[in-house]
Amino acid sequence: MTYCVAVKINAGMVFLSDSRTNAGLDQISTFRKMIVYEKPGDRFMCLLSAGNLSISQAVREILQVEKLDDPEGGEPITIWNARSMFDVARVLGSAVRHVYRRDGDALQRAGVDFNVSMVLGGQIQGEAMRLFQVYSAGNFIEATAETPFFQVGESKYGKPVLDRVITPHTPLDEAAKCVLISMDSTLKSNLSVGLPLDMAVYEANRFQSDKITCIDENNPYFHMLRNSWGAKLREMFDSIEDPTWDGAPTAVPLRCDEARHQPLRKITNASEKLI
Amino acid sequence: MTYCVAVKINAGMVFLSDSRTNAGLDQISTFRKMIVYEKPGDRFMCLLSAGNLSISQAVREILQVEKLDDPEGGEPITIWNARSMFDVARVLGSAVRHVYRRDGDALQRAGVDFNVSMVLGGQIQGEAMRLFQVYSAGNFIEATAETPFFQVGESKYGKPVLDRVITPHTPLDEAAKCVLISMDSTLKSNLSVGLPLDMAVYEANRFQSDKITCIDENNPYFHMLRNSWGAKLREMFDSIEDPTWDGAPTAVPLRCDEARHQPLRKITNASEKLI
Repeated sequence: MTYCVAVKINAGMVFLSDSRTNAGLDQISTFRKMIVYEKPGDRFMCLLSAGNLSISQAVREILQVEKLDDPEGGEPITIWNARSMFDVARVLGSAVRHVYRRDGDALQRAGVDFNVSMVLGGQIQGEAMRLFQVYSAGNFIEATAETPFFQVGESKYGKPVLDRVITPHTPLDEAAKCVLISMDSTLKSNLSVGLPLDMAVYEANRFQSDKITCIDENNPYFHMLRNSWGAKLREMFDSIEDPTWDGAPTAVPLRCDEARHQPLRKITNASEKLI
Repeated sequence: MTYCVAVKINAGMVFLSDSRTNAGLDQISTFRKMIVYEKPGDRFMCLLSAGNLSISQAVREILQVEKLDDPEGGEPITIWNARSMFDVARVLGSAVRHVYRRDGDALQRAGVDFNVSMVLGGQIQGEAMRLFQVYSAGNFIEATAETPFFQVGESKYGKPVLDRVITPHTPLDEAAKCVLISMDSTLKSNLSVGLPLDMAVYEANRFQSDKITCIDENNPYFHMLRNSWGAKLREMFDSIEDPTWDGAPTAVPLRCDEARHQPLRKITNASEKLI
């Protein structure tokens, strides 16, 4: 599997991907899942991909030459001349459909799903930053202030911390810290997600980024983060009082004893307390 | 969906289940997923179920009358006379297969998977506590010191905190607190899991429990826990320093610009740092 996450906040965008792929547990490899497309001063775009590796690699290859007709009769639209991120997402959707036309039937005959999901974000001169999630059918959705992040792959382990921390007003470095914690929880609980990580941080209205890095087990910040988070989570856990029970007999939601073959369906009422 | 979790530690066992079922998002209901079977002084058993509700309800109904032949020619084995939790798990597996024989073909014709998964734990006089996970085929696995908990249903959101906290030496009330936090993370990130919760706490070698309760949004302990956890998680998050970037140009894992149609596959080396 894979875990990729992208966050769009007022201050900028953060992209993070792991690099583990597997075809069965005995066939584990490292493939990078992030590509940055940049024309400094004009556009910065970042693509994260999950799903079948042969499909996502083909999509990335085709994306660079894919063209859409311009309805106004101008030059065909590519990712390099598109005037909006929406058009770039359309070009990406078209590249996905291109691969589907080429490989879809053969994959189906082999019993393999046409499974790919991608996150595309960035900014082009003349418009605000935008973030999209693109599906296997080439259709896509866009992030909004209410839903400022997208995840693909093994997304569940790392979602609670994003849900609790990320808002449009989160500072950029804090968002970077948050996605790294989200990744750490995923790494800890799921073997199919693995180091190294690729991370790209984009500041709004810069149209380029030099904050793009690869993070492995020797990265001192990530090392500190993993240890601190684990230790502090434990401290925090200890600082919350344990539940206590009063002496009163508690009501029983569904208890049955030998004498009654039907479970009692006695529903407890709202006044019952743990303490 | 559903989220159920059961933990077996040296001090006892903790069982927790939500109560939401859904057949599509527009058909949401509340059904309890926990049953306690108790013969005070002799046996305490708790069953949690996830999956297709018609199957799990049928299994629970049949479980109370299901019998296995005793290979030594004694009385047929039931959940009420079995001498080991292993035998109770066998009776449960047999009940699952009973329902499969009855409903499996018709479900298959209707395109419905025979999908049920259950967690069964408890203690019978004469042996130690045991905890099992029972699958749709009626086969099962048992928890060990290395893997002291089982989850069924929407298990991923709440797994990181269990992975970090639960060991065989965790005190019982701490384990109860931990499973409630695990449930809270799941409730927060997944709409298909909902209140009220059923919780049962069993102390080792008691062969009965009066710590069985139903927790809804008015429960003061759960209310405190949810608020404290959210606030403290935020504090803890803030207490970890943000990543900083040195001024050096970072290497680019996969960057391409317009001039080069092939992405640079320049892999960064281990000496790169976020700080």
